[in-house]
Amino acid sequence: MAELLSESEIRERADQLSEWTVEGKQLQRTWRFKDFVEAIAFVNKLVEPAEAAGHHPDIAISYNKVSVSLTTHDAGGLTEKDFQLALVISELE
Amino acid sequence: MAELLSESEIRERADQLSEWTVEGKQLQRTWRFKDFVEAIAFVNKLVEPAEAAGHHPDIAISYNKVSVSLTTHDAGGLTEKDFQLALVISELE
Repeated sequence: MAELLSESEIRERADQLSEWTVEGKQLQRTWRFKDFVEAIAFVNKLVEPAEAAGHHPDIAISYNKVSVSLTTHDAGGLTEKDFQLALVISELE
Repeated sequence: MAELLSESEIRERADQLSEWTVEGKQLQRTWRFKDFVEAIAFVNKLVEPAEAAGHHPDIAISYNKVSVSLTTHDAGGLTEKDFQLALVISELE
């Protein structure tokens, strides 16, 4: 099982992912696209890295807006897995 | 602009969509699939009817769970458009 990161480890990793924010036990980022079709296209791009990592973000879609939220449920908070997947997702666009 | 439905009109239409629930100004339904890949496959099926209707549900994905929420933002609540799209979505599975 992935180990929970300490607060200082979280801060350090979050500093390297400037467009993501830590909200409680979640690592979050929101994207805005041209329209609903482009938003869904982006969501489809998340499937392969999520499956490869065996780690699945929560996703909220509202028309052209996609919010991605990462946490490690079985560890009860943020782990290395969340930051690794966030980095991969950031490179998808 | 689509007209807001009255409470009795909403009740009448909701009775015909037994798996959807009215939560405030939202018409909601949650599906559970085998896994994340199947959940995203379902979300992709929503695109064509949403685009055809010019009406876009809010969607929340959590692993194998997809929650769809309909409302008519510019009317400030539920209209015929929401129930029409809910019916089409119900027939997608």
